[in-house]
Amino acid sequence: MNKLDSAGHTIHFETQLNPLTEILESGKYSKIFVFADGNTSQFCLPVFQEMLDDFTGFDLIETDPGEENKNIDFCIGIWKTLLDFGADRKCLMINLGGGVVTDLGGFVASTYKRGIDFINIPTTLLSQVDASVGGKTGIDIDNVKNMVGTFTLPKSVFIETKFLKTLPEREMLSGFAEMIKHGLIADKSYYEELKKGNHKEIEAQAIYTSVNIKNDVVTEDPHEKGLRKILNFGHTIGHAVETYSLINDKSPLTHGEAIAIGMVCEGFLSVSNNTLTGDELEDISNYILETYPSYQIKKESFSQLLEFMQSDKKNENGEIMFSLLNSIGSCAFNCRVAEGDILASLNYYNTLAKSPS
Amino acid sequence: MNKLDSAGHTIHFETQLNPLTEILESGKYSKIFVFADGNTSQFCLPVFQEMLDDFTGFDLIETDPGEENKNIDFCIGIWKTLLDFGADRKCLMINLGGGVVTDLGGFVASTYKRGIDFINIPTTLLSQVDASVGGKTGIDIDNVKNMVGTFTLPKSVFIETKFLKTLPEREMLSGFAEMIKHGLIADKSYYEELKKGNHKEIEAQAIYTSVNIKNDVVTEDPHEKGLRKILNFGHTIGHAVETYSLINDKSPLTHGEAIAIGMVCEGFLSVSNNTLTGDELEDISNYILETYPSYQIKKESFSQLLEFMQSDKKNENGEIMFSLLNSIGSCAFNCRVAEGDILASLNYYNTLAKSPS
Repeated sequence: MNKLDSAGHTIHFETQLNPLTEILESGKYSKIFVFADGNTSQFCLPVFQEMLDDFTGFDLIETDPGEENKNIDFCIGIWKTLLDFGADRKCLMINLGGGVVTDLGGFVASTYKRGIDFINIPTTLLSQVDASVGGKTGIDIDNVKNMVGTFTLPKSVFIETKFLKTLPEREMLSGFAEMIKHGLIADKSYYEELKKGNHKEIEAQAIYTSVNIKNDVVTEDPHEKGLRKILNFGHTIGHAVETYSLINDKSPLTHGEAIAIGMVCEGFLSVSNNTLTGDELEDISNYILETYPSYQIKKESFSQLLEFMQSDKKNENGEIMFSLLNSIGSCAFNCRVAEGDILASLNYYNTLAKSPS
Repeated sequence: MNKLDSAGHTIHFETQLNPLTEILESGKYSKIFVFADGNTSQFCLPVFQEMLDDFTGFDLIETDPGEENKNIDFCIGIWKTLLDFGADRKCLMINLGGGVVTDLGGFVASTYKRGIDFINIPTTLLSQVDASVGGKTGIDIDNVKNMVGTFTLPKSVFIETKFLKTLPEREMLSGFAEMIKHGLIADKSYYEELKKGNHKEIEAQAIYTSVNIKNDVVTEDPHEKGLRKILNFGHTIGHAVETYSLINDKSPLTHGEAIAIGMVCEGFLSVSNNTLTGDELEDISNYILETYPSYQIKKESFSQLLEFMQSDKKNENGEIMFSLLNSIGSCAFNCRVAEGDILASLNYYNTLAKSPS
């Protein structure tokens, strides 16, 4: 279980960064940059350095934490910093952090001087089970998530559960939503296992299973022409709710909290549009409602949510496209849904979230 | 001679855009965008539309002409315009213009929603013989040329000499410098032919030969790990002079004029570092000096020129790397040159340019 060969690169599990030592000592790179945010430079960088025998042979580039900083201004700042530090095409960038760091760092690396090598060390559960695989890089523009980006694979990915030790429970739950999704779209027995377990004590084996599921999907369809869209289950509505919350709520939803809401809503749509049964929907809804804090999607936000969904990348010819469950463990993509059904699904979630679970 | 199959895409020559009609009528694309600058929308767009039976089924996105606009601000503007126009992943962008339009348009297309299809229709001699092949996209940041970009191939390229009819002589000469370079680095007989001809009347056959030479090189080394660097002959010094001129001269040098100067200087370096003979250097210098207007590289600019060369993408470990001629028709890459020799080469050009040719 210590590595997984993905298209063109290797995902290393629980190796104490040993293979990274070899890479750093190979002399292949002219300079090493570590890119981190204010949190990971404080909590994860020392762990990273310790695993590498107190490694200091790098320049640190730091960004502010938070999705709102995954923007073009920070991106320009990092490009210029690399230039100021004399970064040539043979340098290596190590992205140490959550999805914001690996998305933004990956985009910067994939475009600086038309592309330098980068390695991702995801330090949150969310980024370990999600952003670690598939080569998506990106930044947000005008609050449109990942409006600009590339498909570029890191040279390697290192997944170390050691980094999760410092993670607040809410952050663990955020990543856990993607693991539930992996079970729902591709592996019923994995979903059932997750239900039995405890999201506070995630085992490395479960992370491996999630990464494996995602890897199988993206290997078959790296550029999201078809199958890969199933990974967006819960995300069409989830992203819209997340964006709205980021702009309007004092304490915004995490990605996983928003995706959890999205999975309930899109589970509802799966019943109206596909073959998901009412019992299965109830099972999913109950599990999510008891695992995640409840939230009310404001009625007055509905029209704006629809607008956000309109700019979703999966859409074609102006129609909002969904990925919906056929059953627990199987997912379809390119599903059309009437606007009225979308609104009904938001109301469905609100009704459940209001009543005590 | 009407097409050339390059890695993954086709370069069409003098087809009156017939194959493009098929692409546009295939129904494969949800929307068509034409990206042009103020000049090409005025002079080339009508020619483009006429060739396509007065085609109007597109949205026009226009930028200001000139290298100084190949920057991140215009880039952000175009990303947002695409979003405002409801561009999804299945739209097509047709870049109609010179290198600024195809570089900038290519970068926007290769990153918008992680990449949409684009087609290049280069309308200047320079972009037909240079930017048309090799999949380089890019923008300048803080006057550093192509500091940010990607290697992304257009779906097709269309080369039509009809577009050159409206081009001023100075623009023709700018592209002609790249054709001379192709002869110098790879094909002595082509160089001799160019010398016999007249740069005011470029034949489609010569453009084809140039594109063919470049295509052979980039097919062997798409990501500029080695061989492709020979295409940078004349460009290490040429780019520096071009950048300096763009910032300081009232009427800045064109790209080709700067590259012509660069080829004389780097020809000089080829004599000191390689096997190029003094007679060959004289032949090159005479030909360039009689074809291009002379220019004086100011002594007080020398240190800044060296700084610009330091940020060249070909460099490794802080050393300025050159591509230098072994002989007329053969080029080496990764050549180290002492700073004193670089300065001597600038003085060599200045001395020649002063005396009447």
